[in-house]
Amino acid sequence: MASSAQALSRLSAPRQGAARVQSRVASRLLTTSSRRAVATRPTTLTSRPANITQQFRRAYADSAAPEATVSPVKKPRRFRTLRWIFRLTYLSALGGVAYIGYGIYQDRHPPPQVEPDPSKKTLLILGSGWGSVSLLKKLDTENYNVVVISPRNYFLFTPLLPSCTTGTIEHRSIMEPIRTILRQKRGSVKYYEAEATSIDYERKLVRVRDESEVRGVAVETDVPYDMLVIGVGAENATFGIPGVREHSCFLKEIGDAQRIRKRIMDCVETAAFKDQPPEEIDRLLHMVVVGGGPTGVEFAGELQDFFEEDIRKLIPEISDRFRVTLIEALPNVLPMFSKQLIEYTESTFKEEKIDIKTKTMVKKVTDKTVEAEMAGPDGKKEKVVFPYGLLVWATGNAVRPLVKDLMSRIPAQKESRRGLAVNEYLVVQGTRDVWAVGDCAVAGYAPTAQVASQEGNFLARLFNNMAKTEALEEKIRELSSSLNIKPGNTAEVSREIEEYERQLRRIKDIKPFHYSHQGSLAYIGSEKAVADISWFNGNLASGGRLTFLFWRSAYLSMCFSTRNRLLVINDWLKSKLFGRDVSRE
Amino acid sequence: MASSAQALSRLSAPRQGAARVQSRVASRLLTTSSRRAVATRPTTLTSRPANITQQFRRAYADSAAPEATVSPVKKPRRFRTLRWIFRLTYLSALGGVAYIGYGIYQDRHPPPQVEPDPSKKTLLILGSGWGSVSLLKKLDTENYNVVVISPRNYFLFTPLLPSCTTGTIEHRSIMEPIRTILRQKRGSVKYYEAEATSIDYERKLVRVRDESEVRGVAVETDVPYDMLVIGVGAENATFGIPGVREHSCFLKEIGDAQRIRKRIMDCVETAAFKDQPPEEIDRLLHMVVVGGGPTGVEFAGELQDFFEEDIRKLIPEISDRFRVTLIEALPNVLPMFSKQLIEYTESTFKEEKIDIKTKTMVKKVTDKTVEAEMAGPDGKKEKVVFPYGLLVWATGNAVRPLVKDLMSRIPAQKESRRGLAVNEYLVVQGTRDVWAVGDCAVAGYAPTAQVASQEGNFLARLFNNMAKTEALEEKIRELSSSLNIKPGNTAEVSREIEEYERQLRRIKDIKPFHYSHQGSLAYIGSEKAVADISWFNGNLASGGRLTFLFWRSAYLSMCFSTRNRLLVINDWLKSKLFGRDVSRE
Repeated sequence: MASSAQALSRLSAPRQGAARVQSRVASRLLTTSSRRAVATRPTTLTSRPANITQQFRRAYADSAAPEATVSPVKKPRRFRTLRWIFRLTYLSALGGVAYIGYGIYQDRHPPPQVEPDPSKKTLLILGSGWGSVSLLKKLDTENYNVVVISPRNYFLFTPLLPSCTTGTIEHRSIMEPIRTILRQKRGSVKYYEAEATSIDYERKLVRVRDESEVRGVAVETDVPYDMLVIGVGAENATFGIPGVREHSCFLKEIGDAQRIRKRIMDCVETAAFKDQPPEEIDRLLHMVVVGGGPTGVEFAGELQDFFEEDIRKLIPEISDRFRVTLIEALPNVLPMFSKQLIEYTESTFKEEKIDIKTKTMVKKVTDKTVEAEMAGPDGKKEKVVFPYGLLVWATGNAVRPLVKDLMSRIPAQKESRRGLAVNEYLVVQGTRDVWAVGDCAVAGYAPTAQVASQEGNFLARLFNNMAKTEALEEKIRELSSSLNIKPGNTAEVSREIEEYERQLRRIKDIKPFHYSHQGSLAYIGSEKAVADISWFNGNLASGGRLTFLFWRSAYLSMCFSTRNRLLVINDWLKSKLFGRDVSRE
Repeated sequence: MASSAQALSRLSAPRQGAARVQSRVASRLLTTSSRRAVATRPTTLTSRPANITQQFRRAYADSAAPEATVSPVKKPRRFRTLRWIFRLTYLSALGGVAYIGYGIYQDRHPPPQVEPDPSKKTLLILGSGWGSVSLLKKLDTENYNVVVISPRNYFLFTPLLPSCTTGTIEHRSIMEPIRTILRQKRGSVKYYEAEATSIDYERKLVRVRDESEVRGVAVETDVPYDMLVIGVGAENATFGIPGVREHSCFLKEIGDAQRIRKRIMDCVETAAFKDQPPEEIDRLLHMVVVGGGPTGVEFAGELQDFFEEDIRKLIPEISDRFRVTLIEALPNVLPMFSKQLIEYTESTFKEEKIDIKTKTMVKKVTDKTVEAEMAGPDGKKEKVVFPYGLLVWATGNAVRPLVKDLMSRIPAQKESRRGLAVNEYLVVQGTRDVWAVGDCAVAGYAPTAQVASQEGNFLARLFNNMAKTEALEEKIRELSSSLNIKPGNTAEVSREIEEYERQLRRIKDIKPFHYSHQGSLAYIGSEKAVADISWFNGNLASGGRLTFLFWRSAYLSMCFSTRNRLLVINDWLKSKLFGRDVSRE
């Protein structure tokens, strides 16, 4: 018994090298020895070197043992795999959180900015939409004195605007303040919240005016520029149809979405008013959407969701009378999508009881009715009147007065109707140092966010290159002059010049703007979406619930910032968990 | 070697009872034996019974070993405690999530409702503020035909409204739709979104009108009642000071908070406009708050936070010129707090550079200035003019026209000035079956949410009791008449009657309303708060950062629903993580 205790103390005493590394093994051995001591009393270990060797062997045996085992050991092994999977998940989740956290921290604590160098050129950017903000995001602002002017001091992620009308997403989740965007730039950028009222492209001046409610002593001023980018977008087109501006809601800005949200609930509450006659309830709960593009279709789908998922539960007495009608002048909705997706959308809408009226032209709008002309299958035109509670006008762009005024003063823009005609480098035709992007520019593409964003990116590349080119040319000029002044070392200097010239050629060779269509996406209600994705040289068309997940992840990935992304996910969870808010506010 | 292998296979083969239970032990023994086999070649085990005994002993030794061990084994033991702590935390977190999840699920899937019985009395409740909603929450709606009428179809958690003005909290997080509240009740309740325009207490009719933007054919109607509760609140008092209504922002409703939020950013952006003169920047960034109650003080604190934490980072060039001035007519701010807390608030405001002007009466407001009369320490009055960018009017309640009109028609209300005089059961004096709660009632208490909420609770208890009383009286009446008609069994019936009468006496004995003050709380900026809490018969006064945490948890616990609570926490995290949104919207 004494000898075994001696063995015990020897085995348990910490030792150098392997013994220390294998301390867990040692503790196991210890248990073993004590058991043996009780059971079989093994021969004691006395010689120290032998002991160490033995320990090594034991360690080997210990680690090899699990491989050599039979059935009873199998169970822990399976658990071990599970445990590893758990650990990996856990670690990658931790890593993900750390990564996102670091990103947020960096966004919140940007490095100090470089003050603009007054000797550099002034680049004036008008607007804070897709075109201007894409340009700003990629632009190396240290190369210019950048000034941004827009009446809206935030960027709006327009593709998710229809979701804001019913509260699936809160509006602030898809807004990114321009001040935050500019704070991330290396070179500091000036921003003025004002509206450009006229552009003098000959004297290189833009007149701006503070049109907001609060105005100071300085209300209107001229901002000079060396280079100008016009990205002011377009306004809503009413096509001269009487009553549209007075009675319908547009769906372009955050204010529009809020107005619609408030009005939906106002219609519902008014329909639920005491002794409201049935035909009046029908009118109040008839929501008419004009425009079968993605905005109109998504809005109709969101509306239907809102009624089915939320209003029906809370105000069941009126919810059966709810109807949505989608009016489109063309023969079908979603004209940019392939035929099978159009059919899929139409059949889904049928299931959701959304009425599609194609080949229908709105002629007049009053405060309670939409009068339209519908072409039947035989081509005969028929007049129809839709009484409505809410009318949303989601069709057509019109040229803004600022752009119209500029166009009228440039002879080369005489022929252009839909906006500023630009060349393949997005330079406004008939001007120098003026570029245009987005919906106010006519470059031969559809007026979409995708086009505007690619145009903005293109201009950023162009401007960055121009700055680099100028810097290289400056260097070459300097070297050439030094070559003439001090002789000797000529070979090296000319080699240097040659190198710079090679760089210059490479940089200068910038290809004209070419739009590459990535695809079209639209949500169609009931957690279904349609997608037409460009895939190599073909097209990938899909529709349904999986496409809805794709729609969500695509829009998420396109969000401006990590903040926007997290807020949108948060809102989706919120509306799933608690339902949409039915407060009229 | 062969014999040891034999022992191995015996030891590792699964056996009945202890052997199976101790399979992990067996697997350890197995490893041990193999190690031993390599190292010391122990005597082999041949007899089976001996083997089992041995295994038992081994098991005993194995489990006893950790208790008897020395240093190397201590570490796992400490880890085990940690592991248990981890497991407990994990389990309680899981339990908490499950509990909250269940609560949300229940809120989202309430049981079907009982339709109101037309033979029951109609209880009409006007308003959707603290008084009315507290009443609704506790009321057993199966006992009455309950009708709720309010122009605002949601309950607003007013204590957190100042946080909405800067975006620390989003406004929808402190709103709870009245439809959701009513859906939780057992007996279904009617709700009309309308404004009560007059009350005919003699004919028991309330005239209501849909004052919202969307109106149907039915716009105005009379709603009859058997019992009426008036909880319409009060409106903002301007004390007849010229210019207040036109130029200042109030802080009572969600719309007010949104207007202030938009205007703050408008002032900032206008101050940052090109070539704005310095004195104009000073004016635009001077925020004047009138009213030193909790609302005014909290708003001033939130404003200062917004500038220090967010605007300073994003628009550093103007942020030094930002100033807040708090104007109060009384000799100090927060008059309901104890003296040391008033001093603490004043010194904190001094640190935060918020200017407090006490004993200052506003005399006139123009679009850019506040003219006031300030009493100096010597009592001499001095005229001062404050140029401002934003003026927030957070003081005083005035009687609503509806209530004023009703008061003028009740002779017993001649003497009352500040609202409907009520008796100790909250019955409007000079009427029958009309009760009043909250800011429109004068019961001798301050016009606070706490009072209104306790009054609502009291009325709910009262009405529940009245219904029970009537039911019991009805039963007693029935039993008494049956006693006269069919003889026999008399003793039992009279015993039953006696029992009901005893219940009746117990229920009928309802004490008059008595307000119990729980304490006062106010946030004062820089993550500090002050609290005066009623504690037994004394008072517990505290101020600082810990009180801020208490302030947060107290307000959280007072939120209407789990949904509100989670949304508010979510917003606090959001604004901590991403900062407040500086978009002007």
